Amino acid sequence: MARFPSRRSPKAGLPPGTLVHVGAVRAEEVKVTLIRYDAMQVLEQIVDVTQCVAVAPPAVTWVNVDGLHQVEVIETLGRRFGIHPLVLEDVLHTGQRPKFEDYGEYVFLVLRMLYRRGDGGPLEDEQVSLVIGPNWVVSFQEREGDVFDPVRERIRSAKGRIRAYGADYLAYSLLDAVVDHYFTILEGLGDEVEELGERILSRPDPHLLSGLHSLKQTLLFTRKAVWPLREVLSRLQRGESPLFDRDTQLYLRDAYDHTIQVIDTVETFRDMIAGMLDVYLSSASNRMNEIMKVLTVIATIFMPLTFIAGIYGMNFAHMPELRWRYGYFVALGAMFVVAAGMLIHFRRKKWL
Amino acid sequence: MARFPSRRSPKAGLPPGTLVHVGAVRAEEVKVTLIRYDAMQVLEQIVDVTQCVAVAPPAVTWVNVDGLHQVEVIETLGRRFGIHPLVLEDVLHTGQRPKFEDYGEYVFLVLRMLYRRGDGGPLEDEQVSLVIGPNWVVSFQEREGDVFDPVRERIRSAKGRIRAYGADYLAYSLLDAVVDHYFTILEGLGDEVEELGERILSRPDPHLLSGLHSLKQTLLFTRKAVWPLREVLSRLQRGESPLFDRDTQLYLRDAYDHTIQVIDTVETFRDMIAGMLDVYLSSASNRMNEIMKVLTVIATIFMPLTFIAGIYGMNFAHMPELRWRYGYFVALGAMFVVAAGMLIHFRRKKWL
Amino acid sequence: MARFPSRRSPKAGLPPGTLVHVGAVRAEEVKVTLIRYDAMQVLEQIVDVTQCVAVAPPAVTWVNVDGLHQVEVIETLGRRFGIHPLVLEDVLHTGQRPKFEDYGEYVFLVLRMLYRRGDGGPLEDEQVSLVIGPNWVVSFQEREGDVFDPVRERIRSAKGRIRAYGADYLAYSLLDAVVDHYFTILEGLGDEVEELGERILSRPDPHLLSGLHSLKQTLLFTRKAVWPLREVLSRLQRGESPLFDRDTQLYLRDAYDHTIQVIDTVETFRDMIAGMLDVYLSSASNRMNEIMKVLTVIATIFMPLTFIAGIYGMNFAHMPELRWRYGYFVALGAMFVVAAGMLIHFRRKKWL
Amino acid sequence: MARFPSRRSPKAGLPPGTLVHVGAVRAEEVKVTLIRYDAMQVLEQIVDVTQCVAVAPPAVTWVNVDGLHQVEVIETLGRRFGIHPLVLEDVLHTGQRPKFEDYGEYVFLVLRMLYRRGDGGPLEDEQVSLVIGPNWVVSFQEREGDVFDPVRERIRSAKGRIRAYGADYLAYSLLDAVVDHYFTILEGLGDEVEELGERILSRPDPHLLSGLHSLKQTLLFTRKAVWPLREVLSRLQRGESPLFDRDTQLYLRDAYDHTIQVIDTVETFRDMIAGMLDVYLSSASNRMNEIMKVLTVIATIFMPLTFIAGIYGMNFAHMPELRWRYGYFVALGAMFVVAAGMLIHFRRKKWL
Amino acid sequence: MARFPSRRSPKAGLPPGTLVHVGAVRAEEVKVTLIRYDAMQVLEQIVDVTQCVAVAPPAVTWVNVDGLHQVEVIETLGRRFGIHPLVLEDVLHTGQRPKFEDYGEYVFLVLRMLYRRGDGGPLEDEQVSLVIGPNWVVSFQEREGDVFDPVRERIRSAKGRIRAYGADYLAYSLLDAVVDHYFTILEGLGDEVEELGERILSRPDPHLLSGLHSLKQTLLFTRKAVWPLREVLSRLQRGESPLFDRDTQLYLRDAYDHTIQVIDTVETFRDMIAGMLDVYLSSASNRMNEIMKVLTVIATIFMPLTFIAGIYGMNFAHMPELRWRYGYFVALGAMFVVAAGMLIHFRRKKWL
Repeated sequence: MARFPSRRSPKAGLPPGTLVHVGAVRAEEVKVTLIRYDAMQVLEQIVDVTQCVAVAPPAVTWVNVDGLHQVEVIETLGRRFGIHPLVLEDVLHTGQRPKFEDYGEYVFLVLRMLYRRGDGGPLEDEQVSLVIGPNWVVSFQEREGDVFDPVRERIRSAKGRIRAYGADYLAYSLLDAVVDHYFTILEGLGDEVEELGERILSRPDPHLLSGLHSLKQTLLFTRKAVWPLREVLSRLQRGESPLFDRDTQLYLRDAYDHTIQVIDTVETFRDMIAGMLDVYLSSASNRMNEIMKVLTVIATIFMPLTFIAGIYGMNFAHMPELRWRYGYFVALGAMFVVAAGMLIHFRRKKWL
Repeated sequence: MARFPSRRSPKAGLPPGTLVHVGAVRAEEVKVTLIRYDAMQVLEQIVDVTQCVAVAPPAVTWVNVDGLHQVEVIETLGRRFGIHPLVLEDVLHTGQRPKFEDYGEYVFLVLRMLYRRGDGGPLEDEQVSLVIGPNWVVSFQEREGDVFDPVRERIRSAKGRIRAYGADYLAYSLLDAVVDHYFTILEGLGDEVEELGERILSRPDPHLLSGLHSLKQTLLFTRKAVWPLREVLSRLQRGESPLFDRDTQLYLRDAYDHTIQVIDTVETFRDMIAGMLDVYLSSASNRMNEIMKVLTVIATIFMPLTFIAGIYGMNFAHMPELRWRYGYFVALGAMFVVAAGMLIHFRRKKWL
Repeated sequence: MARFPSRRSPKAGLPPGTLVHVGAVRAEEVKVTLIRYDAMQVLEQIVDVTQCVAVAPPAVTWVNVDGLHQVEVIETLGRRFGIHPLVLEDVLHTGQRPKFEDYGEYVFLVLRMLYRRGDGGPLEDEQVSLVIGPNWVVSFQEREGDVFDPVRERIRSAKGRIRAYGADYLAYSLLDAVVDHYFTILEGLGDEVEELGERILSRPDPHLLSGLHSLKQTLLFTRKAVWPLREVLSRLQRGESPLFDRDTQLYLRDAYDHTIQVIDTVETFRDMIAGMLDVYLSSASNRMNEIMKVLTVIATIFMPLTFIAGIYGMNFAHMPELRWRYGYFVALGAMFVVAAGMLIHFRRKKWL
Repeated sequence: MARFPSRRSPKAGLPPGTLVHVGAVRAEEVKVTLIRYDAMQVLEQIVDVTQCVAVAPPAVTWVNVDGLHQVEVIETLGRRFGIHPLVLEDVLHTGQRPKFEDYGEYVFLVLRMLYRRGDGGPLEDEQVSLVIGPNWVVSFQEREGDVFDPVRERIRSAKGRIRAYGADYLAYSLLDAVVDHYFTILEGLGDEVEELGERILSRPDPHLLSGLHSLKQTLLFTRKAVWPLREVLSRLQRGESPLFDRDTQLYLRDAYDHTIQVIDTVETFRDMIAGMLDVYLSSASNRMNEIMKVLTVIATIFMPLTFIAGIYGMNFAHMPELRWRYGYFVALGAMFVVAAGMLIHFRRKKWL
Repeated sequence: MARFPSRRSPKAGLPPGTLVHVGAVRAEEVKVTLIRYDAMQVLEQIVDVTQCVAVAPPAVTWVNVDGLHQVEVIETLGRRFGIHPLVLEDVLHTGQRPKFEDYGEYVFLVLRMLYRRGDGGPLEDEQVSLVIGPNWVVSFQEREGDVFDPVRERIRSAKGRIRAYGADYLAYSLLDAVVDHYFTILEGLGDEVEELGERILSRPDPHLLSGLHSLKQTLLFTRKAVWPLREVLSRLQRGESPLFDRDTQLYLRDAYDHTIQVIDTVETFRDMIAGMLDVYLSSASNRMNEIMKVLTVIATIFMPLTFIAGIYGMNFAHMPELRWRYGYFVALGAMFVVAAGMLIHFRRKKWL
């Protein structure tokens, strides 16, 4: 099943803005990567946090942090880029919903990245935070992942428009990478939905039911991670922040469309699962009906027969039929007539 | 059942605006048709994509592309008409929801065309994309279809207003053709709904249930294709784009009304199906009740009788009744009284 | 059950604005009535369509058309009053939802009139279209009806304000007549709801269920006819069209209130029906429970008894009890004890 | 159960603004009370309607009418205070939803007063209409009631602010009296909800179910009476009418809060009832399960035993076991073993 | 279960603004604490209410009142800080929903604090009211609690920003303390949800059902307490009141985010409980199915066997089979064949 929502709050009572890491430690070491590029050149290195500083435009500075449990790293970075303590607090408190906050000189974005632990393992999510300034982006991930690799690759090889554009386009690219990854996750879920659907149609089984329920929970979990992103992107795409220029807004509109498609697909999956549940339930109720019919048919046929046999099993001294020459065969015949009558009755009632 | 939502994304990781065709290849060959007309004359020919270019007003240029799997055709067309790569990407990525995007000099519309493969086959949908400039329209279809034929016919024969109006009216006509086609689809679905309804009323059967469920899914599918179109047409009709002049807006309002009617009809069908399900379920539960009644009546009558017979089938040495002259008949009489009493009791309880 | 939504579209493929009558022919002949009045005098006659033309204010011209199947009548009328072909198309295409369209010099209203064919017959609806100009009103009905009679009567007898006011008040009066008629329909439905409610409370019967379901469908049908009118009247009452002066808006607000009351009553009926369904279902489930209890009690009492009788019906050579002097009575006594014990047990469990 | 929504419309066909009393006659006689006060003095008397007229500020005139069936009284009053016929029509047509209408020089408010006929009788409602002018208030009640008594008392004794404020504060006080009365009604309903809840928890019984259903209907009825008031008060409190000055708006905000609290409480009651229904249904289904278990256990134990007894009750000439010395005891032993085995099996399955 | 919503209104009929304490008396004595601080110094003492008065900025005055049943204390405080009687009335009437009211010179906030009586006791709530002026805050609690202790501690020790900021930040801190406490409550509820979930998965039992239902009620109760706070904080954070400066608004946005997280978590819990209910219900229905199967299998096997035995237990004089040498064994064989056939049949039907 999907990961339980983080709700432990070791922070209760501390003044707001106090930096405490809340959440599981998912990376062994905190790794800070610095990438600097403009249209001409790229510089990429793993650095100590103190080396991170934004340079003058048109160069773009991208600092990526994998692992959040060393609070002092985050704090230093915050000081160097002038980030408000509340932002850093949210970065560290990894149970945030996707959101967009405008702090004037920079904006703060929270996304939730979905991934599967191992192959076919349970669906989990991770908080990805982006702080976007005029010509710099700082991104925070809970664990080292490969979702941003294509973006790095494009920067290195100057593929696409990325090197020619500013920090806003870089931020969009990271965002787009996360959204694109949703499609991969959905693909896996879609396979599960389809497989379950086929199995339920071919042979409804109580064991499939728990599969349905857990898939339903997983979809709910996915929906919670993606749904608020729609609002975030809608605001970005409408140009609420001047940091994103008109051209990048077109791309953000595209990402917005993708998010809506993701939500749409999740809803479709939920509808399909609801449909399967209906199919399952009605087939279960049909089976129950059938079982009851069998019981009723058997009881209705054999109870009268057994009763007739019981009559002639009585030991009264004076039972004239018992002496009849063909009494036994008449009794058998009567039983046959009763049974046949019942059967015809049931066939007329379409119970057989 | 309805086609599964397209969710494979071979594009994950590629930079945005990269042109890759996503979806099934539904046409054997890409066919580009060019129609040019003004109030005086019409020119219509199958052309190579390089020949497509918009001419000066008042002439209208309509380029129709059937089949999307040759990316270079789409790309050339995009360059010749100055279409943004994101638009071309959406044209090629055939899982879009209906939408409307304003790019200033031109607008981009995505529609979903519904059709049935073969007669009575499953309902499928296809993406129809329209790019509408000041005096040109480029339309993209996944496969060669005949939905736009009436529009072509009207252009050729100068029937209606089409030749006298501009590209906006042409775009409206194409849109209207798609919406009109929904009514044809709905007619077929309506027949199915009615037929099922009659069969369920006359004889509820578990087999009809799966028909109901699949019809429900099909309606859901239809709804998903049509619902977002409402929003698209609402925005167009309110005059959000200056490309559509005041006069055409009246027609768009008409198309908007039709879309609402389509949605309304789909909702009515869904309500009818929900009603049928209720009828089915309550009739199933009534049948169950009846079966249980039969079982109970039979058991309640024959169990005491069999018990009485059992008593006089005992082999005790001293059982005075067995010696009575009319013991047997008294026993039979007792049984008759018990049975009659039970029957009267059940008739009073209205179980019979 | 309520009439099936009209969904046949013989128009697919025709250019928009083509006039084709869609719907059942409900009147034998098209009848055009012309009423002209001002504060002083009234002129009323059945006319040929070519005689219809608006005269100068303050006189008001009202043209009423009963029956729509003669397209040329509608067309001529349209030309004489300068009505847009799209309006005429909607007038003829009788499956429109209630709507309000502002064409500048005139406005177009579609209403749905509800009526019962015969007494207690199924509920049907009919499209009533109104085109309202500065000092004229053209109204279209599918069949000759008597809903507008009170309005005619008021014009003739100068009762109320109607003769002193303009075309906008006439339009309001027609609208109000349709809305008032809803109350008559609701009254009939309310009687049915109440009667069903009483019968279900006094004696729940599967046959009542189909009555409930069909009443539910009828209410759904009513709701669909009335619901969009709320929006129409809300817009009119807010003064969206300058054709309706401030004073008439007060009256429109009144009609708006009535519409909301109609919707409210329909909702109340639906709630009541849902409540009845609940009552029915729980009483059905109670009965099932009771049936099962009877079966269980009978089986639980007689099975052990029959078993005891069976034991002493065995033919073993050595069965000591059979020889006992009071064996038979001891056995009967044992049976009595078992039966009594069971009965006490069931009474404790409150099953009896 | 709650009173059926008034839906008889003897008015259909009459011109709007025609004054006809619609609703039950609830007061024997129409009683008109006139209260005039300023900060200095109070005048209170039962008057003839012709004596009612507004005096100059700062004196406030309050005319209260109990009983609506004498149309001419209402009409005279309307003429004297210059009230629009549509307002009077709504006053008389006592099935209005709560609403607020601004007529410029005065505003019109409709409220629904809830009361119980007798103690613990069914919940009914009554229409209370207020017409509020610059320094006068006319209030209409269907029957003489005591809800406004505390307001009268406060005027007489100059308690609170009422004598120092204007007609708007008087109107607020009347409104507040109606809202306050809702709390009294809710208190009674809450007691019923709690009592039912305890009885269902301690002993679920089919008879409680009908109590639940009727309580549910009553809450629905209450909700319908209160819900639209929220909108009315929201508009008043926002200052839509200049008749209510800034200071009184604070008080209206308070009344608005109370209304929301009433709605909230009704919703809470509905949630509680839904919860009880769930508890009832699951306990009913548990009982059904238990009954079935008992039946199955009994049948499963005694059927094999009876069968064994049946075998040795057969009259075959050659049945070796019958001759065995301990045949009978072996048979009894076998029966015991079968019964014990079954019992162990059931205990393992946790059926016992 | 959660505390019943307060609905007794001993106030009905009193003029608005009359101060009466409504609610349980939860503190033994009313305790008024005065804290005064600026960046330099802190003064903290338990005082008599007459000593409370706001001093000049930049010093901040915080008056905290524990216990509300001494109306005169509240009244004096109200007079000294110029608080409107309606505010005091709401402070005393402890059944308010969370709300925000702007009175110009000060604002009034109502919150609902959740706490558990004892360990694992039922969830209760308490009204916390805040009146916030330019440089003073008056807070009212129903009972002495420790939720505000961390804030006091921070003021004393000058930890965080609190001493450097004004009364708006103090108000935020109190608000934040209440919201933070929700997380603690949620943690406990989450543990219960998880535990129930595990028990239901491992062994569905009717007793768990009542646990589920009561947890559902508790979550509903929590939701009612928190939901309106979202609206309150949304308005504060958007800067509706000039008392909160731009900087504090950032913090309020943070508190708003936390509230949404709380609501989100509550919704997640409710979804999880709904999922558990589904799991429980389907497992219950599976068990029912299984019981019926066992019954049917047993009956279907033994009824025919018992019937055969019954036949040969009849006492007819002429029953040829009885004389056969191997008649008995043939009969036993026939029984075996019937039983085996039934078993094979059931195995094919997958009932075994």
